Amino acid sequence: MSPEDLEGAGVKIILANTYHLYLRPGHEIVERLGGLHCFMNWEGPILTDSGGYQVYSLSKLRSISEKGVNFQSHIDGSRHFLGPEEAIKIQRALGADIIMAFDECAPYPADYEYVLNSVRLTSLWAKRCLQQERGDGQSLFGIVQGGMYLDLREMSAKDLVEMGFDGYALGGLSVGEGSEMRQEIIRETIGFLPPDKPVYLMGVGKPEDILEAVMLGVDMFDCVIPTRNARNGTLFTRKGNLVIKNSSYTDDGRPIDEDCGCYTCSNYSRAYLRHLFMANELLAYRLNSIHNIYYYTHLMGYIRNAVRDGRLEEFRDNFYRQRESDTLNS
Amino acid sequence: MSPEDLEGAGVKIILANTYHLYLRPGHEIVERLGGLHCFMNWEGPILTDSGGYQVYSLSKLRSISEKGVNFQSHIDGSRHFLGPEEAIKIQRALGADIIMAFDECAPYPADYEYVLNSVRLTSLWAKRCLQQERGDGQSLFGIVQGGMYLDLREMSAKDLVEMGFDGYALGGLSVGEGSEMRQEIIRETIGFLPPDKPVYLMGVGKPEDILEAVMLGVDMFDCVIPTRNARNGTLFTRKGNLVIKNSSYTDDGRPIDEDCGCYTCSNYSRAYLRHLFMANELLAYRLNSIHNIYYYTHLMGYIRNAVRDGRLEEFRDNFYRQRESDTLNS
Repeated sequence: MSPEDLEGAGVKIILANTYHLYLRPGHEIVERLGGLHCFMNWEGPILTDSGGYQVYSLSKLRSISEKGVNFQSHIDGSRHFLGPEEAIKIQRALGADIIMAFDECAPYPADYEYVLNSVRLTSLWAKRCLQQERGDGQSLFGIVQGGMYLDLREMSAKDLVEMGFDGYALGGLSVGEGSEMRQEIIRETIGFLPPDKPVYLMGVGKPEDILEAVMLGVDMFDCVIPTRNARNGTLFTRKGNLVIKNSSYTDDGRPIDEDCGCYTCSNYSRAYLRHLFMANELLAYRLNSIHNIYYYTHLMGYIRNAVRDGRLEEFRDNFYRQRESDTLNS
Repeated sequence: MSPEDLEGAGVKIILANTYHLYLRPGHEIVERLGGLHCFMNWEGPILTDSGGYQVYSLSKLRSISEKGVNFQSHIDGSRHFLGPEEAIKIQRALGADIIMAFDECAPYPADYEYVLNSVRLTSLWAKRCLQQERGDGQSLFGIVQGGMYLDLREMSAKDLVEMGFDGYALGGLSVGEGSEMRQEIIRETIGFLPPDKPVYLMGVGKPEDILEAVMLGVDMFDCVIPTRNARNGTLFTRKGNLVIKNSSYTDDGRPIDEDCGCYTCSNYSRAYLRHLFMANELLAYRLNSIHNIYYYTHLMGYIRNAVRDGRLEEFRDNFYRQRESDTLNS
């Protein structure tokens, strides 16, 4: 995806990974080349995560202290250290518009003592993040942790709100818990967050999970699903998912979704997309990604309109009804 | 590469492989979906090869008779038959603008008897191709074979010219022979071809090979080099090739070629392209392909201008001088 592809698919903001960019190519190199916007030719806003989640999910031999986390790179096993000071310094060098406080993401499941300690560390680190010098106009979000313990989520949220951030993220979710538990955590936590600040649910998710979270008051999301599913050939439509390699699409001249206005649906048939995918043509991944991202940006647009017009419940009913109609291939 | 990427890189015509499209998705499917132009969303001219070369280079258990070639698919080992009638029928279904007669590509090296038989077969098949019904406006080119034997090249060329084709291709080259031998074959063969018909050198090649072939009178070329090299990270410039993974480009803020006007050079640094390549980002292959294709289409443009203005020798001298100056990285 080029920046022009993203713009064409309705994307206004992108997320970049602090952990990945720190390891490769290195934040000093990005900074020397004018920061992320210039480096990757993206003029719109950029959000960087703190690196905390990838240190937890990707790196090896993690050892955590009050100072920060020692870990080994998932690429070459080299040893590194990230703490709150480092995370902010890196995000400052990258030059993102919204940056995240460094947090400790507890595994799931984790016992109460572990998560309590993780909340205390996250609060301690959040405070130190706030004390670091940031770049001009960089907003800083705090990340609420607390695993699946409602009292620890409350503690974490109150700690952060007292410090005062530009926005609040819900971290440590989408780590294996069920969607009902996740919704309960969101519902209970969001009440402790200021209603005039954005709430960002990290790493979520599927269209239905996003919709349910918006019902609970969440404003922002990030997820690999639209692009990862695109590369795997699973395409989103209002009527449900379409698996492009299915042989029924071999000579299907229709677009993925006849109601979709994306570049892919405007120009290519299911049969062609299936052919590209079966032949491992790189264009398949791009055309599929354009469609899935367009689906997501437009889903969010419809949701925003519904919120504005006070008809979110109605929108949700329609959303599920369209899926159940199962008329994708008829 | 999307059609828009190709247009932006100056591409006016593309080549599609009859062998590949016959096996997957199948020419009937392409035909049912409106032909190749419609199927792949490309409005410009399309040339299809005959399938003869891929049957020779990719398929297994090839057995040749006057009727045609029995072979096994390189994808799944399934058995297939292609002869002159089938090749034209497939290319008619694909709906290309320029189609090629079915030929027998001799291996290299091959003894005189083998190549003599291959020339006879190719002439026989060419005649049968001419007798097949073609689509509206489809031009048909004959393919000169004859291996590295000048008298057999002459025989093949004369046979085909007598039959009368819309253009003439030189096949069976770029199969392992040296560039001097190739140039001798071209020089000697082209004298037997009508000067008012296009001459197409199949499967060639490197910029210098194209330039030398134009000096000998060749008009058309096709080759995987621009895109294959792009995917391998080798980028063409007037000053020579740039291997993007070299560590010297780690923080090099310059474009691939400061004199290049392509989308990639207009927007991205060597450092960013190196980063994408090292991280196996799919965007790397696309941005590199855009640059290399732009290089080729503009090289051909400069060559056409030089031919028109009668200064091809001068152009060639400059071409080699720029490469020797070795100032790519200074």
